[in-house]
Parts: sequence; structure tokens; C-alpha cells
Amino acid sequence: MFKEKMDLRLPGPVQVPKEIQMAMEKSFDHPMMDYRNPVFQEVLQETITKAKAIFQTKNIVIPLTSSGASALEAAIINTVGPKDTIILCVIGYFGEYLQGITDHIGCKVVRVEAEWGEIVDPEAVRRALKENPEAKAVFATHCETSTSAINNIKDIAAIVQETEALFLVDAVSSIVGTPLYMDEWGIDIVATGGQKALMQPPGLALITISDKAWSVIEKLQCPSFYFDLKLYKKDLESGVGTPYTPNIALVCGLLEACNMIERSGGIESEYKRHAALRDMTRAGVRALGLELLVNDSAASPTLTAVKLENADQFRKLMREEFHIALGGGLGKVKNKILRLGHMGYTDAADMLKMFAAMELGLLKTGHKVELGSGVAGAQRQWLDNPNC
Amino acid sequence: MFKEKMDLRLPGPVQVPKEIQMAMEKSFDHPMMDYRNPVFQEVLQETITKAKAIFQTKNIVIPLTSSGASALEAAIINTVGPKDTIILCVIGYFGEYLQGITDHIGCKVVRVEAEWGEIVDPEAVRRALKENPEAKAVFATHCETSTSAINNIKDIAAIVQETEALFLVDAVSSIVGTPLYMDEWGIDIVATGGQKALMQPPGLALITISDKAWSVIEKLQCPSFYFDLKLYKKDLESGVGTPYTPNIALVCGLLEACNMIERSGGIESEYKRHAALRDMTRAGVRALGLELLVNDSAASPTLTAVKLENADQFRKLMREEFHIALGGGLGKVKNKILRLGHMGYTDAADMLKMFAAMELGLLKTGHKVELGSGVAGAQRQWLDNPNC
Repeated sequence: MFKEKMDLRLPGPVQVPKEIQMAMEKSFDHPMMDYRNPVFQEVLQETITKAKAIFQTKNIVIPLTSSGASALEAAIINTVGPKDTIILCVIGYFGEYLQGITDHIGCKVVRVEAEWGEIVDPEAVRRALKENPEAKAVFATHCETSTSAINNIKDIAAIVQETEALFLVDAVSSIVGTPLYMDEWGIDIVATGGQKALMQPPGLALITISDKAWSVIEKLQCPSFYFDLKLYKKDLESGVGTPYTPNIALVCGLLEACNMIERSGGIESEYKRHAALRDMTRAGVRALGLELLVNDSAASPTLTAVKLENADQFRKLMREEFHIALGGGLGKVKNKILRLGHMGYTDAADMLKMFAAMELGLLKTGHKVELGSGVAGAQRQWLDNPNC
Repeated sequence: MFKEKMDLRLPGPVQVPKEIQMAMEKSFDHPMMDYRNPVFQEVLQETITKAKAIFQTKNIVIPLTSSGASALEAAIINTVGPKDTIILCVIGYFGEYLQGITDHIGCKVVRVEAEWGEIVDPEAVRRALKENPEAKAVFATHCETSTSAINNIKDIAAIVQETEALFLVDAVSSIVGTPLYMDEWGIDIVATGGQKALMQPPGLALITISDKAWSVIEKLQCPSFYFDLKLYKKDLESGVGTPYTPNIALVCGLLEACNMIERSGGIESEYKRHAALRDMTRAGVRALGLELLVNDSAASPTLTAVKLENADQFRKLMREEFHIALGGGLGKVKNKILRLGHMGYTDAADMLKMFAAMELGLLKTGHKVELGSGVAGAQRQWLDNPNC
């Protein structure tokens, strides 16, 4: 009956609010579509100006018409040459992804690692920088989407800032959901995508760049034409727009997302709302008797990983029986964890619905569950902190 | 009153049919958005299978979440290394754009040129190949969007096919509107975007690759991770999808575009429809007493360039008074030509409206025009060939 009904409790892509859908749909009509039109140029300038608040920065924000993944590549190839050294903080699948990029361009990689579910010790970054003083950059994943652990970006930034190296951050699944103060913390590049807590359908990436990073970028020949950040800076600052046809609809959608965040109390209130959703989720998981992958101190406000053997069978049942899509494990934790997404367009009632359905799903896949227990755990937490 | 009303008679982006808007909007909801979901994977496979007809090919069609421009870069960086030679056929602004890409990667470039408004002599390509037998590829723009001239891709393909070199084609503004037979003509890579005659809003590029090209691609290290075609081939063929989050909405929109073309009689009838629109437009321009930039033999069915001094003042009036957006000149013909778009979601009545408004606009900007003359010229042509 409801083949096309589905609640997305995924770590992205996420449900798109009606307001953003409408902003996008409006752009399919005139005169936005003419992207050299002054009307669209005003929208573009307003969007990238408002987007600064999202990164807590005064730096220019550049929209790339491509997936979030491409912004990570743009950060590296604009700042690190093939013979340079880069330090990667690797705590899961998306840390390995960074290594995929660096292997492609052939730079020397120094890895600072932690077990999946744990985070990097900032002091290990300090040691790596001492042992590799030639390192041009340190790249860290903020929220590691494969494990739901949050790296300590603030402390790593303070350490990198003492050196000549640039500090690059993958904020794809952390932006808006987790505190990130680009300027205050001293981050040089933040790269992200729209399809997570920014509530957009996929197709737009964002990247923002400090003065320290620009001084490196301007001296380096970027191997890619499409991702050459110098070209974007020039065109955006001169009011021409972007060097290549932008995804007009997603620029309009992003402006609406910025406006929604502004109207609902600003970025700080989004941090609080996501933290409340996280705490509610963790309370519900614990009340179900399941084990969390990440300690409280490093738990992401945007998604929660839960240990569960044969997770994919359970996910299939949740999808087919209750029309709720949950994330699964990637790489070496495939079929061993669930990833419950609670970023963007998600409220407390969505989480209660998920827990109620999970209780039935666990029962039907042979687990011992007391009906109502997960819901009650989440409810009690909500009574303590109803900020979501 | 009608600040947001605008007819797009532009050489892209183009007006988006309601059917495609609805297909995209539907995808903002469940369960499509979960792009690893089997439902979306089926849509993706159906889309890339149907898209083969658009290129007249049996080869795999790869969707890239990025602008059309990026597909041109992907074609080059996957087949030509930094020390290799590439022959570029340059007949306008977008030919120069190819040079921008090759300059970035630092390959040796041999240019085969023609004046803006004219096309490359295929025999000149033969000579360039003889003089540069080491050339790894020849790249030609099919429809040069800055001039509305169509290069003779069929004859160039026949010449390149006799050599080891690959033949790469920029079909951004030609695809669907102009005959292009990838397999029959022997083209190795066709790169295009959705925001022209494919009737999509911008944000999706398509690239298709021959066996001869794959054998080169597989031996070469692609400098870009995001645009490494090997990764796409692997994931698409194994049913995993795409290596990076795809623009789900635009994949759904593209499927609807393929279905619309299929329902309306197939790709061959689109060629005829666009040719009829072109002939009607050229008849109207001539009846207005204006000069066409391109000879009949090389005129694009997707857009028509018209010589006009102070074109930008006229365009401004057309936009403000009649809510019709016309394309202007790029590069060295800036302010000297109009570019009238008639690709995709455009019918005969749209063109009559444009001519009627142009007559008034020309009068108001000091030109001598007999009212009704341009419209009548286009009407007479339509009576001869009402195929649009």
C-alpha cells in the first residue's frame, strides 16, 4: 500500500522541509533560471552572506555545484601539492576517504588514528606536527559519520595554529548540528555539503577559507579547473557569480535553510536542539538495553551509532514494516551497527515514533524487549530537556 | 507588477517542464532520498539505460553531480596526462574554455581554429594529427554556444577514428537538439549537461565512454578523485550506484525527460522539432532585416546568434518591458550579438511571441522595423514546416 512512504532516520540524505522544496520549485520558474540575471545574483550574494553564520566566520563562503565529497577534495587539492606532506586524522570510514583523495594526488600522508568509535588525541597531532615539520596541512573529520564520534576540533585547531600548517576540517555531517566556530577556533578551511543538517537534497557543497589558507592557495596551481577556488573567489567577489553554471535551485534552497535557521533563533539554538535530540536518542537506546558505539564525551548531536548484530536484517524489517529508513554500518562495521539520524528536519515526536517501531522490530527479530521501554527512556530525557 | 515573470529564450539554462518539476519534487520525499535504497537504485539504472538513446550509444552513461563544464574536464583528465598532446578544435568561447582546462593540467595543446561564427575544416584536423602523431586526443565542441555554429563532428570523427587518438566531444548545447550518433560516427567520449535541450535545471552532467576510451582510462591515473570515471563505472556496473551522493532529484528529473522524449516520438523526432524551430527563427530574423552570425550549413538547431550593435541595451528592454530573456554575446562579441535560445521546452508560439516583442523592442531602440514583419517571416516558415 505505502510503497513510497518512508521516514528517513538516516545520517543523510535527510528529509527536505516543505519551505525548502517550495523555494527550490519557485526557482525552476522565471527569472531565477537565468543565472546571470541580477535577480539571481542578488539571491546568490544574500545566500553566501547569510551562510557565514553557519560557519561562524567572516570568511567568504563558496558554493560548489557538486556533492559534499567534492569539497573535501577541493580543500586538499587547492592547498597541498603532490610532493607535500599532509597529516590526516582518521577515526573511521570518512577519514579513510580522505586518504583516498590524497592517494589520488600522491602526497605523503601521515596518519593520526583512533579506533572506530573513538577520537583522535590532540596531543598525537602535536607530535605528528613535530615529527613532520614540513607538513603543509592537517585534515580532520569533525563528525565521523560512520561511527557518530566527534573529533575535538577546537583543541586540534589550537595546536595546528601554532605552526605554519593549515587546518582543514570535514564538517559534512556536523555543520549546523554541532558547535563549530571557524574564526574563534582558528580553522583554515571548512568543507561541507547541504544534504545533512542543512536540510537540502544533495547536489551542493560549501567551502570556506581563511586568509592564511588563501595565501597558500594563491601560490599553488590547482590541478582541477572545476574546483579551482581562486576562480570562484574572483567571480563571487566581482559580482559575476560562479565560474560554472550553479545549481540555482539548491542556492535558493540554501537561502531558505539559512532563513529558517535565523527565524528559529539562530545557529546557537540549532546546536541546542540537536544536542537535545542526541540526548533523547541515547536515553532511548540505553532504555532498550542496546549498547552505544561512542562515549558520551564524543557523541555527535547529528546521528547515533548503536551496536547490533545482524543490523541489516533489522533495518530491512524497519523499512518494510514501518516505513522507517535507518542507517547501517559502513566498511568494517557493516551489518554490526545501526546509525540513527537525527539531524535537520527532525523533532522529538519523530524520535518517539522511531523508538516505538524499533521495539516491535527488535521483538520480531528475536530480541528481548519490554514494549514501551525505549519510548519511555526517550520521553523521560525529553522531560528533562524539551529543547527539541 | 510582474517582477518574477520571465520567458527564457536563452541558450540555457532553460525553462523546466512541469512534468520534470514534479518528478524532482516527488524525489524530495520518501523513499527516493535514501540513495542506497533499492527503489532509487532502480530509478538510477533505468535512467542511465534510457539515457543511452540520447547519445545514440550502447556505451555506459555516467551521471556526474556537477555542472556540464565539469564533464568536459572529466573527459580530458581521464584520458590525457600532463605531458601528453591534445588537439583542440576552437571556434569560440567554449573552445577557449577547453584550453582553460588543458592549461590547468599542463598538457601540450595543438589548436585547430576557425573564426567565431565559422567551423573547423575536418581536413585541418587530419593535418594536425599527421603533424602531431603523438596526440592522445582530439577535442571538439559540437554546438559552440557562443556563436551557434555546429562543428562537423561526423567527418572529424571519421578522421580521428583512423588514428590511435581518442575523439572527445562537448555536446553540452547540442545533445537532443542536434543529430549526434556516438557509436555510428565513432566518437569516444561525449560530455554534456542537463540544463540545455534536456530541459533540466542545472546541476547534473552526463558523460559516456567508448571501449577504445576505457582502455586508455584504465591505464591512466586520474588526478581527480571526484571525477575518476573508473570509480563510477565500477559502482554503476555492480549496482552500488555512484561513488558519491548523487543529485537524486536531478536523476529523477532526467528519467522524466527521457520518458517525455520517448513519449513524443523519440530522439529522431526531437532532432526534427529543433531543426524546425531553428528554421523558423532564422526566417523571422531575416524578415526583420537582421544579419545571422552563422551560415545555413552550420547553423545550430538549439540557438541562433544574430548580429546587433548595442545588443545589451536591447536585451535589457526586452527583459524589463516584455519579460523575455535573450542571450547576449560572450568574450569578443560582447554587446555585438543576440543569442536566441530555442532548445528544449520551446514551441512555435513561444518563438512568435518573441518576434512580436522584438519588433517593438527594435523600434523603441531606434531601429527601422515594419511591425509584423518578423512574425510573418517565422509564420511563413512554420507553414512550410510545422514540425515544432
